[in-house]
Amino acid sequence: MKAAFYERNQAIRIGEAERGAPGAGEIEIEVAYCGICGTDVGIYHGKMDWRVTASQIMGHEMSGVVGSVGEGVTGFAAGDRVTVMPLDPCGECPTCRAGYDHICENLKFLGIDTPGAFQERWIVPAHTVRRLPEDLPLSRAALIEPLAVACHDVRLAELAPNDLAVVLGGGPIGTLIALVARQAGARVIVSEINPYREQHLEALGLEAVDPRAVDLPALVEESSEGAGADVVFEATGHPSAAEMMTRLPKARGLIVAVGIFAKPPEIDLFQFFWRELRLCGARVYENRDFDQAIELAASGDLPLDRLISDIYSLDELKKGLDLMSTGGDVMKILVQCGDRA
Amino acid sequence: MKAAFYERNQAIRIGEAERGAPGAGEIEIEVAYCGICGTDVGIYHGKMDWRVTASQIMGHEMSGVVGSVGEGVTGFAAGDRVTVMPLDPCGECPTCRAGYDHICENLKFLGIDTPGAFQERWIVPAHTVRRLPEDLPLSRAALIEPLAVACHDVRLAELAPNDLAVVLGGGPIGTLIALVARQAGARVIVSEINPYREQHLEALGLEAVDPRAVDLPALVEESSEGAGADVVFEATGHPSAAEMMTRLPKARGLIVAVGIFAKPPEIDLFQFFWRELRLCGARVYENRDFDQAIELAASGDLPLDRLISDIYSLDELKKGLDLMSTGGDVMKILVQCGDRA
Repeated sequence: MKAAFYERNQAIRIGEAERGAPGAGEIEIEVAYCGICGTDVGIYHGKMDWRVTASQIMGHEMSGVVGSVGEGVTGFAAGDRVTVMPLDPCGECPTCRAGYDHICENLKFLGIDTPGAFQERWIVPAHTVRRLPEDLPLSRAALIEPLAVACHDVRLAELAPNDLAVVLGGGPIGTLIALVARQAGARVIVSEINPYREQHLEALGLEAVDPRAVDLPALVEESSEGAGADVVFEATGHPSAAEMMTRLPKARGLIVAVGIFAKPPEIDLFQFFWRELRLCGARVYENRDFDQAIELAASGDLPLDRLISDIYSLDELKKGLDLMSTGGDVMKILVQCGDRA
Repeated sequence: MKAAFYERNQAIRIGEAERGAPGAGEIEIEVAYCGICGTDVGIYHGKMDWRVTASQIMGHEMSGVVGSVGEGVTGFAAGDRVTVMPLDPCGECPTCRAGYDHICENLKFLGIDTPGAFQERWIVPAHTVRRLPEDLPLSRAALIEPLAVACHDVRLAELAPNDLAVVLGGGPIGTLIALVARQAGARVIVSEINPYREQHLEALGLEAVDPRAVDLPALVEESSEGAGADVVFEATGHPSAAEMMTRLPKARGLIVAVGIFAKPPEIDLFQFFWRELRLCGARVYENRDFDQAIELAASGDLPLDRLISDIYSLDELKKGLDLMSTGGDVMKILVQCGDRA
């Protein structure tokens, strides 16, 4: 069967992978769609070679149909439409025992630490498989995984209706955070420097500003009767946003740190002291976030389909990775991996 | 009457101040003791000249006896033993309206933004005056204000019994945090590089380590069955502690930022993301913290008197400021300001 292999240094090889059979406790999924994640782009550029071993099949934002189930698997059968919550925790480390197994110290992230979904069939532990509601298209279902990230971030933010939320960064994750925060009743401002993304956000009915053209702290102050933002989501990983994020919250306001920083940025801790700001890191999602993402995707309440910029064939994966590497003139690229799509 | 004036550039002038009468809503206090705060040392070195106007009488960690009360003041009379919670908020800004008037946007901090207690008599707004329990010595009462800072920091940390707390910095505030955290049932490790302070902490029965001699992350891991610290208090304001603070907490652990940083330090935001760490800034205290500090000081449960390194006369204020400027071979210096001591 066909698969796409990461071979280091921006090399992607389309080749044959041996089709295995699901072992005990495993499920084989015929992959329909798999989205290209920013993490995949990072892997493609060698930024995770310390963790990812070539030849590696990437991909974890997927949808598909159960092909077959291994010994002892109950609750799933061939033909079931599914997605995967790609976290495989150890269950034994202090973090798992404390109830945070989504950030397990020995976490295997499927598609990063194990083979991923950029292949025709994918074998995964049964506990990671989630059934899809009947009327949820498989293309949209490939957005559930990043949507679950946004659900997690917004839940940790404890937004109240009419709260003012500022999202720094209008890429796929920032956009999803903005949509979920708006759905939760918040007023949302998104800061984004890329004109394509800014227009995309506006087309979704979101207030988007370029912080180089607009005085964002002044806008936030004006939008909050002088108080400041209730919550700031940092979804860029850029040093300039690390500087901006401490200027926007109200006293006791919260910063949710979502972006990944290549190196420790300078952060104005004095602002944390002076206004008793709070910050929390937010990584992946917990079960309830993933459940919420499935529900939200099925509800049709969010304009998720409009985040899909294009659908490529598996042969075109490299083209998609290159397009996403150029910067921001694209949102989400889905890759059609099998004939189930 | 005698007063000590800050005259910029490490100059302290002991001179005569006009003795005023308390206006409506004010109380005149005969000052007994006033402690030298790190903030006073900063002012003395010109670090707050943007905010403090010479000639300025400093001092806000005080105890004394009511001399007279102004028009309309009820509940206090000459002879009452008192201390002052030196915060005068505006009551009208968004932060005050949100219930956080201790970090009011227009806060007047008595002794910084107004004349302070390094004088024989001090006139303050009546709402800032707190009555002292009968059996609480006036010398110990001068420690209530910094103790209230520690009560605030520990309350924000939401420590549970047997939690592991690490305090970075064993100066007066770090030591008080450690004592209050221990009183709250936490296990406490204090990180301190000054040998005098390290010995002082050990004499108080606290576990103190020099992070240059001891592998602090390894010690914390060992002390928490591999989990990490529940709470880290950053009480140094030093870049090296900003680096250390992200290495110690457990997953979802909390960093309480107490120290004042002269410039934004580099902070490993990736650690916040990876382990979903939390951080909150903590500044001064709220009413309930000040009340708790008065109770704790009166209870005798904390070895507060042992934090008093020496008691100087008002004439010796400069000597005390110079001693505290040299570094760490001292804890708290009290200044005897009047004959009520």
